[in-house]
Amino acid sequence: MKLYTYFRSSAAYRVRIALNLKGLDYEAVPVHLVRGGGEQKRPEYLALNPAGLLPSLEVGGQVLTQSLAIIEYLEETHPAPPLLPADPLCRARVRAIAQTIACDIHPINNLRVLQALVRDFGASDAQKNAWYRHWVETGLAAVEAMLANDPRTGRFCHGDAPGLADCCLVPQVFNAQRFACRTEHIPTVMRIAAECETIEAFRLAAPGNQPDAE
Amino acid sequence: MKLYTYFRSSAAYRVRIALNLKGLDYEAVPVHLVRGGGEQKRPEYLALNPAGLLPSLEVGGQVLTQSLAIIEYLEETHPAPPLLPADPLCRARVRAIAQTIACDIHPINNLRVLQALVRDFGASDAQKNAWYRHWVETGLAAVEAMLANDPRTGRFCHGDAPGLADCCLVPQVFNAQRFACRTEHIPTVMRIAAECETIEAFRLAAPGNQPDAE
Repeated sequence: MKLYTYFRSSAAYRVRIALNLKGLDYEAVPVHLVRGGGEQKRPEYLALNPAGLLPSLEVGGQVLTQSLAIIEYLEETHPAPPLLPADPLCRARVRAIAQTIACDIHPINNLRVLQALVRDFGASDAQKNAWYRHWVETGLAAVEAMLANDPRTGRFCHGDAPGLADCCLVPQVFNAQRFACRTEHIPTVMRIAAECETIEAFRLAAPGNQPDAE
Repeated sequence: MKLYTYFRSSAAYRVRIALNLKGLDYEAVPVHLVRGGGEQKRPEYLALNPAGLLPSLEVGGQVLTQSLAIIEYLEETHPAPPLLPADPLCRARVRAIAQTIACDIHPINNLRVLQALVRDFGASDAQKNAWYRHWVETGLAAVEAMLANDPRTGRFCHGDAPGLADCCLVPQVFNAQRFACRTEHIPTVMRIAAECETIEAFRLAAPGNQPDAE
């Protein structure tokens, strides 16, 4: 398997964690999101991923896109260890936590959106950072409520083994810290992120440990 | 089942289509996203859905959130008719199309984001509409490429039966038309949306046919 990745891409980071948790080997193909206006916009890459976004996973002669779709694929084809619980209501809970991050926080703070704020509204760096922090802080507050008020939360987002929601949580917390977001209001999120950091699969997937890290 | 919905909510519209395709009865509980500053921000609703977003589905004494997580739950508990194909690579393709809409287009144009553009940058109506159209037009261009260049596309996004990707496509096309977005560049998307409109499950889920339609 070949993973098109960028060390700081939050969506690629999710997939790297999932691959590591499942013990799957892959070749990392770095796609630099900034250099030369963004390598993800080059025709060669757009032929693989028409959205021009990361990650993409080449597998079985096909190219899969969208981090959550890729992780569900890995789950279906390599079920052990499971990243989703067995019960449908619990699976829905884990997917909802994952999507609260992947749909409600991350896309609004994506590089191309921040660039559009500058292009369309002349956003200053301070305004860009305030925008970023607003969506992270409110979005993770929702995740905190989903975690703190539910007895199914354990050492990790769901029970005592890491899963799909944790694959999304850790990269989002990494971003929160990078942009100096408030985290006092999300103690459960931070406790679980710290718990994940004790696991090698998460540590090896971190941006600083990637071949293209700067 | 009780669906917390708003006639114009794109994410609720997806779930309404899925419920109809599966022939499942539900009670619609309208949550007005604009009236009184937004009923989704009231404490009663936040207790069900801490993100303050639509839809939520009450089922088996629990509240499920996030449209794609809800549809996956319906798929797992009511497998016929299937909204996902059987093959893992094909499932990944359908989910990727769905997520290209649900993660890469819709969240950036959500009501609360448009409100933030006004609050933070004093965006005019014209600027808000240009923002909206930009993300719809570029996002649906990516979906068009995923559909037009793949022999697995049929009458619908994947083969000749409607599925998860179509549940996302139709509400996004509805929004595109409402905001007068360009559609000449997405003939396959528009062909499939028209095909879906011939099916009662899609028509009955449309905003204009909801009890809370204005």
